[in-house]
Amino acid sequence: MQLADLFTPQAREATPPMYGPPTADQGVPLISLAYGLADPALFPREELVDAAARLLAADANAALNYGPNTPELLTLVAERLRREGVTAHEDQVLLAYGSSQVLGLLPQVLIEPGDTVIIEAPTFLGAVMRFRMAGARLVGVPVDAEGLDVEALEATLRELRRAGVRPKFIYSIPTFQNPTGTTLPLSRRQRLVALAADYGTLLVEDDAYVDLRFRGTALPPMAALDDGNWVLRVGTFSKILAPGLRMGWAHGPKPLIERLQMFKVEGSSGPFLTRLVAAFAEGGRLDAHIAALRTHYAAKCDALAAALRRELPGADFVVPQGGFFIWLRLPEGVRASALAPVALRHGVEFLAGTRCFADGSGDAYIRLAFSEEPVARIEEAARRLGAAVRELQAS
Amino acid sequence: MQLADLFTPQAREATPPMYGPPTADQGVPLISLAYGLADPALFPREELVDAAARLLAADANAALNYGPNTPELLTLVAERLRREGVTAHEDQVLLAYGSSQVLGLLPQVLIEPGDTVIIEAPTFLGAVMRFRMAGARLVGVPVDAEGLDVEALEATLRELRRAGVRPKFIYSIPTFQNPTGTTLPLSRRQRLVALAADYGTLLVEDDAYVDLRFRGTALPPMAALDDGNWVLRVGTFSKILAPGLRMGWAHGPKPLIERLQMFKVEGSSGPFLTRLVAAFAEGGRLDAHIAALRTHYAAKCDALAAALRRELPGADFVVPQGGFFIWLRLPEGVRASALAPVALRHGVEFLAGTRCFADGSGDAYIRLAFSEEPVARIEEAARRLGAAVRELQAS
Repeated sequence: MQLADLFTPQAREATPPMYGPPTADQGVPLISLAYGLADPALFPREELVDAAARLLAADANAALNYGPNTPELLTLVAERLRREGVTAHEDQVLLAYGSSQVLGLLPQVLIEPGDTVIIEAPTFLGAVMRFRMAGARLVGVPVDAEGLDVEALEATLRELRRAGVRPKFIYSIPTFQNPTGTTLPLSRRQRLVALAADYGTLLVEDDAYVDLRFRGTALPPMAALDDGNWVLRVGTFSKILAPGLRMGWAHGPKPLIERLQMFKVEGSSGPFLTRLVAAFAEGGRLDAHIAALRTHYAAKCDALAAALRRELPGADFVVPQGGFFIWLRLPEGVRASALAPVALRHGVEFLAGTRCFADGSGDAYIRLAFSEEPVARIEEAARRLGAAVRELQAS
Repeated sequence: MQLADLFTPQAREATPPMYGPPTADQGVPLISLAYGLADPALFPREELVDAAARLLAADANAALNYGPNTPELLTLVAERLRREGVTAHEDQVLLAYGSSQVLGLLPQVLIEPGDTVIIEAPTFLGAVMRFRMAGARLVGVPVDAEGLDVEALEATLRELRRAGVRPKFIYSIPTFQNPTGTTLPLSRRQRLVALAADYGTLLVEDDAYVDLRFRGTALPPMAALDDGNWVLRVGTFSKILAPGLRMGWAHGPKPLIERLQMFKVEGSSGPFLTRLVAAFAEGGRLDAHIAALRTHYAAKCDALAAALRRELPGADFVVPQGGFFIWLRLPEGVRASALAPVALRHGVEFLAGTRCFADGSGDAYIRLAFSEEPVARIEEAARRLGAAVRELQAS
């Protein structure tokens, strides 16, 4: 007898999620623009230690004993949503260990093998792999310069309905999309919300980057355009405070939030951790921090854009209005798969476009994160990328 | 169309886990011995703030950016296991948000509706309800003064085998059991491990209280008696550091640990949180803290035992060698269900024995936690309990 006999069929077939590629052994010390890491220069270290000291002085028993999430963090999330025009209720907020936990729990509530999920093409594959692991059939709808193509989405929904298929949800990143950096304009947001209601499917609005707007005017989230029935808004403190704290959230229809909470088997997201985030945010500290992040990331985005124009004149991209990424169409004839090893030899790493499409297409694109590295290294990375492209073109 | 149409059948049927009873409106301010809360007097507040300051000064990027669990905490868990005689490997350690997360993930890997799980009677129902929610059929085996009755277990396993049933796992709390406080002697541990292997079933050893031994000699965990194939040991920092941090762990066969990790959809247990626990433990601080906890909880256990002998001479109990609880057999004719409202009126709360048996039996017993309250209030609680029992007996 084997222990493995005891596993459920689903557990037997489970595979670990995709991780980044192994770091190659390249002569030059690597500059990686592959991952959307936060800039450590902006981590509020002293403020976090101070927040920990304050919350433990105020009520160590509440923070360190068994107990629920602090209501203060539920209120903080709800108030920030109300500022954006969402009719938010504290009892419709789920606090989770990162928005990735929300996106990981979602298929447990909604997906049975064979169910259909509509995703953007390209998209954030980290989330999408979780849907696929649960047995979802993924249907991609293209993203253009203004985000998800809602005409194509409607055609897809119509076609699925004709085939008797009601998709379980549409997964969209409307603001500074990962990987394209595009932002869905208001008209498309309205259309997308109307389509979700018309076709009776959940709209999952992953708005991880929304607070990091460098320029242009904020748009209402889709959750503010809905009647409260069909949109689950997912957010995170990872981009505006620190990813390593693992604090994300979701707000949406109560029956869905309740079920996500039931499948969150460990219960709360930590009396201590929820209080740490709330204590940090107190007295306008979070808003001030976000303002500083915006200025800082804007400068890095502009530096990367300028360097790319200099170093890769044949490449094409739209400068995003916020977020972490520039999505680059490589010069004619250059494929990401061929460029990657050459770039590594030159000491620069990117995310291949194929890592952003569920069907493995996208070899003409790469995603460059300007979030983590300082400006000088971003500029050096662009120079190396330019040299790698020229070497590949010459060969 | 309704959003709820989109839920999977399992999500539609899900019910929230059982919580404690609502706090009644009783004239007297309540002293509760109902829950196994930690004593806030012993929370190492300054040391935790100091640990946070140190880890952020040492490497804020590792602690606050995206990244894995700190290897230091994996090593800490593995080294503590090796000290207990377990052949422990860092890559067979799962770090989780409390041991309750491990116990919540376990059915996702092992249970399909109708599968059989063997539990102790009485046991920790918080975990068992998670097994039931996943559709497990629960089979209880009695606990006597020396813990799980291994003769009865063997009879149950034999009977199940005759019926063609191979149980998925046996859930046991061998040391200072919740709720009985009993500890399984070595001979029973050996027998239990042998039975798990013979019958090809996983033995889940929940050893949450093992470090809180007041007297007697430590016994080898069952994980140390196994050949590495059939025991999953589950532990926690909740009882030896602080429950509110939510840090637990499991160690066991690699294929099982790997699958539990895959079903832990959010990935790590937090770069910051794992570093905070590891930084606190550094330099022997955790061991020193545990030594202090032992002395402190031993005194509270003895105080409750002495007070119960004075105030409830007709009740029966064994003084545990460690842990958080005294399991009390009420005086002849007194039922927990009848006593509870009277006790609340007298200003004392306990956990009814029926809350510890999956079949709702146990009305002759109550569980009293001496962990949270200070000695003076524990003694007052015993006086109130005595008065309540006398009132009930007189009526």
